[in-house]
Amino acid sequence: MLSQTAEYAMRAMTWLSLTPDQLLPTSELARHTKIPMHYLAKVLQQLSAARLVSGRRGVGGGYRLARPADKINLTEVIAAVATISRIHTCPLGLPNHGTNLCPLHRTMDNAIKAVLEIWEGKTLADLLNDSKDSKPLCNAELTAKLTVSAIGRG
Amino acid sequence: MLSQTAEYAMRAMTWLSLTPDQLLPTSELARHTKIPMHYLAKVLQQLSAARLVSGRRGVGGGYRLARPADKINLTEVIAAVATISRIHTCPLGLPNHGTNLCPLHRTMDNAIKAVLEIWEGKTLADLLNDSKDSKPLCNAELTAKLTVSAIGRG
Repeated sequence: MLSQTAEYAMRAMTWLSLTPDQLLPTSELARHTKIPMHYLAKVLQQLSAARLVSGRRGVGGGYRLARPADKINLTEVIAAVATISRIHTCPLGLPNHGTNLCPLHRTMDNAIKAVLEIWEGKTLADLLNDSKDSKPLCNAELTAKLTVSAIGRG
Repeated sequence: MLSQTAEYAMRAMTWLSLTPDQLLPTSELARHTKIPMHYLAKVLQQLSAARLVSGRRGVGGGYRLARPADKINLTEVIAAVATISRIHTCPLGLPNHGTNLCPLHRTMDNAIKAVLEIWEGKTLADLLNDSKDSKPLCNAELTAKLTVSAIGRG
């Protein structure tokens, strides 16, 4: 249901949340998130176009979050790489359904609404602070390091 | 979030639920559901492969539901054309996350779970019986006809 691109966007943004004070090279981000380099480069372009990351090319270049992790919710990340709009009017244009929707499209919209409620209620920072025993994308060693501060380059 | 193919699969199955006792030609199904003919033909192949519809080629041929509408839930329809599996283990293969998942993938899985609960709880028949004033995919005239019985060929 979630595209590979959406999964990769979430991984990239989550890892960048762990390293907020540095420009992280794409190669390093690819290694930590286990995303193929070329695929990741495309995802980062989309995240950059959505103004969720900022980057600098060349030696010493890389990417960082464009805003603090507690100011970016998960819907924003997914929306940067996928269409996740609610169903507001009948997709068939039937006037008797209009904005009330028929039972089919109301059910489809309820599913979209349920997902958006979960994603909008969480920021990237929430994912990092959710549990001290299990940090997103981190093995046991890195999780232990993260009990106090953000990680350095690994 | 929902693919065009998933939307079309839901429309096709819902319309076939309205006409359970007849083989409906693809051209007629395309007209009622406002799906392009060639696209619909591919969707019907997928629904047929998932044994949700059965069909007959040639003159007088067409498609019908393979089972009664109250025996097909919405998850089955979507699953015929899309991957909607839960996240059971860490997609990065990190042993410390394992089946517990990290906060990122637990949140992603919660979203999938919420959607599946909505879809699994509804059958195609539920969509038809949800409201007597608004039948799925039907204009006002057809909705009025459907107060008693399934529609004939329009």
